[in-house]
Amino acid sequence: MRDSLPGTTLGIVGGGQLGRMLGEAASPLGVETVVLDPTPDCPAAPPAADQIEADFDDQAAIRTLADRVDVLTLEIELADPDALETVQEATGTPVHPAPEDLRVTRDKLRESDQLDAAGIPVASYRGVESDSDLEAAFEELGSPLMLKARTGGYDGRGNAVVESVAEAESNFESLSGLVAEALVDFERELSVIGVRGDGETGTYPVGENIHEAEILRETLVPARTTDDRMERATEVAESALSVFDGRGVFGIELFETEAGDILLNEVAPRPHNSGHYTIEGTVTSQFEQHVRAVLGLPLGSTDLLAPTAMANLLGDEGDPREVVLSGTDSVLAMDGIHLHWYGKREVRPLRKLGHVTTTGPDLSVIHDQVREARDTLRFAGGGD
Amino acid sequence: MRDSLPGTTLGIVGGGQLGRMLGEAASPLGVETVVLDPTPDCPAAPPAADQIEADFDDQAAIRTLADRVDVLTLEIELADPDALETVQEATGTPVHPAPEDLRVTRDKLRESDQLDAAGIPVASYRGVESDSDLEAAFEELGSPLMLKARTGGYDGRGNAVVESVAEAESNFESLSGLVAEALVDFERELSVIGVRGDGETGTYPVGENIHEAEILRETLVPARTTDDRMERATEVAESALSVFDGRGVFGIELFETEAGDILLNEVAPRPHNSGHYTIEGTVTSQFEQHVRAVLGLPLGSTDLLAPTAMANLLGDEGDPREVVLSGTDSVLAMDGIHLHWYGKREVRPLRKLGHVTTTGPDLSVIHDQVREARDTLRFAGGGD
Repeated sequence: MRDSLPGTTLGIVGGGQLGRMLGEAASPLGVETVVLDPTPDCPAAPPAADQIEADFDDQAAIRTLADRVDVLTLEIELADPDALETVQEATGTPVHPAPEDLRVTRDKLRESDQLDAAGIPVASYRGVESDSDLEAAFEELGSPLMLKARTGGYDGRGNAVVESVAEAESNFESLSGLVAEALVDFERELSVIGVRGDGETGTYPVGENIHEAEILRETLVPARTTDDRMERATEVAESALSVFDGRGVFGIELFETEAGDILLNEVAPRPHNSGHYTIEGTVTSQFEQHVRAVLGLPLGSTDLLAPTAMANLLGDEGDPREVVLSGTDSVLAMDGIHLHWYGKREVRPLRKLGHVTTTGPDLSVIHDQVREARDTLRFAGGGD
Repeated sequence: MRDSLPGTTLGIVGGGQLGRMLGEAASPLGVETVVLDPTPDCPAAPPAADQIEADFDDQAAIRTLADRVDVLTLEIELADPDALETVQEATGTPVHPAPEDLRVTRDKLRESDQLDAAGIPVASYRGVESDSDLEAAFEELGSPLMLKARTGGYDGRGNAVVESVAEAESNFESLSGLVAEALVDFERELSVIGVRGDGETGTYPVGENIHEAEILRETLVPARTTDDRMERATEVAESALSVFDGRGVFGIELFETEAGDILLNEVAPRPHNSGHYTIEGTVTSQFEQHVRAVLGLPLGSTDLLAPTAMANLLGDEGDPREVVLSGTDSVLAMDGIHLHWYGKREVRPLRKLGHVTTTGPDLSVIHDQVREARDTLRFAGGGD
């Protein structure tokens, strides 16, 4: 890393919307980004100085990237921790978050073990490698339970709520490499964006997440809960941060139960969809914060500027097809609505294509506004 | 222009910091930028999708750019209006602001004529093509007077306050192509960022500009003057917008006299240094607004979020040399300071290299904060 900030270059493994927004946030700091992604003209390519077209686990390509940049980071958990570690050792280019952080978070069993060992409250769980393990899980954790693939799950893919071994067998290819969790009857899903910098940590305000079919639809900040519960959520998030080693932003998802308990659901070692609100809602966006953290720069303020609402723009259920949006003029004419479009060329069902954010004094008013903006956008050819 | 916003491409003639910040603002809208600039790896290149390396008046290169984009705009007044007009006619790619707007604003005499004819208050002036014209100017406008080159001036270059023909001769190569203006004994320099969209216009809050040696140093918003005077400044800015034809953001500089009169100083048909505060200070930055306007999209809100202060980071008086900054860590650790670095590689005296902005309830507090941040940054090798 150079002595002075201007001229610093950040390599990013992964070129989706998170990489795109990292590039947008890095530029004002004078930091250039280079992204590695197999898809030509990936979403992160336009605001990046350059793209290396290669698979996320292509060690030679990661090494080429490492040779061009001052620090290497990642924006997808598909990045290969072993390849990153090898390249870090071979080139001396630091990798943040630490490859070890990635090893933990990409394996749901290992993550739960590590959080549980640190005394962080998580739903009761056990690893499942066979049908007898699963039977034991029903005994211990009750029925139904949440069954998850240990690795490779994303946005609810690889998860299923099951009531019997037979039901589990119909949802998973084999009854191994799974983790079973007691189903949490939560009142609210919360999240906290946390950050580990160089010798300092920070947390953002507690957000409330509204999911449907396990895909995040809306985030409201602050969460519509009590101050006590938000304090507790922040405490749990702070403890979770202490479990990791490397620097960067961490998306920390939590459950709030009816009794007011806070359980940690999962941690992503990168900027998180539930933190997109920070672009307009806080002093320092999660993307600028991640850039600061991984480069070892001082962290910025995580203060909320005003209550903020965010809604995702998801692909509709029609056939995959080229994106032709209508309604953008109406949305841009809405007072205070901020449109973020990720530059993806193809609509696919529930694909994350963009988001809208607004801020204002009354959370229920701005919640209605972002939902209205989202519902005004339509994709042509959707089969209506 | 396509039916839908995503996938739209904006061509920008000029690749300095204004082009860079246009690219940063275009990306979240899903708009890609391509810049034309003769300097390899110009400041606007990293966040742009691509750069065409060519001179601002290279008509063939402008045509190549026009063929690649949906709309063409500019970020420097050195752009050649004739070349832009020819390309617009040949390719059908719209140019905003209109080449005619550029013809007016790049010629200070023509600009004053046009504003004066529209009843907009300007300092008394007359064109100077000879020493006898200049003598007549001293008679009519008093002495000293402000003498300006009609074209090519920038940041005070090409301007001089003179008391005699002899003094004028020592400041200008010839006594032609000039405009003489009565010296305005102003109390305060103000500016308003205005915008002309597709059938709508808008103005931002009135800012107060602090210049030294005719270079903008700081902008404070709102200006520290009375509501009446700010209203009048907004009125004058609105009238000035009506003088132009094309779409885009206009930087409108004004004088406030001790008596409370508002005079128009000059207009730039592009985002303006005095509008950089809008990135953090208003709902829609002047850069996003320019993108919206030139693409014919609905304009965004120009509302102020909170009082805002901006300070320029200017090159020091040492020899031109590679930029090595110190103090960035201290500045990034300052609460709420936003650093914008333009990616220029070389320090030159008074060169605009970046800016810092902060917002807060108390204008005098945030004014001190941006000055402190600015003064904390140092260039190595400055000869201390």
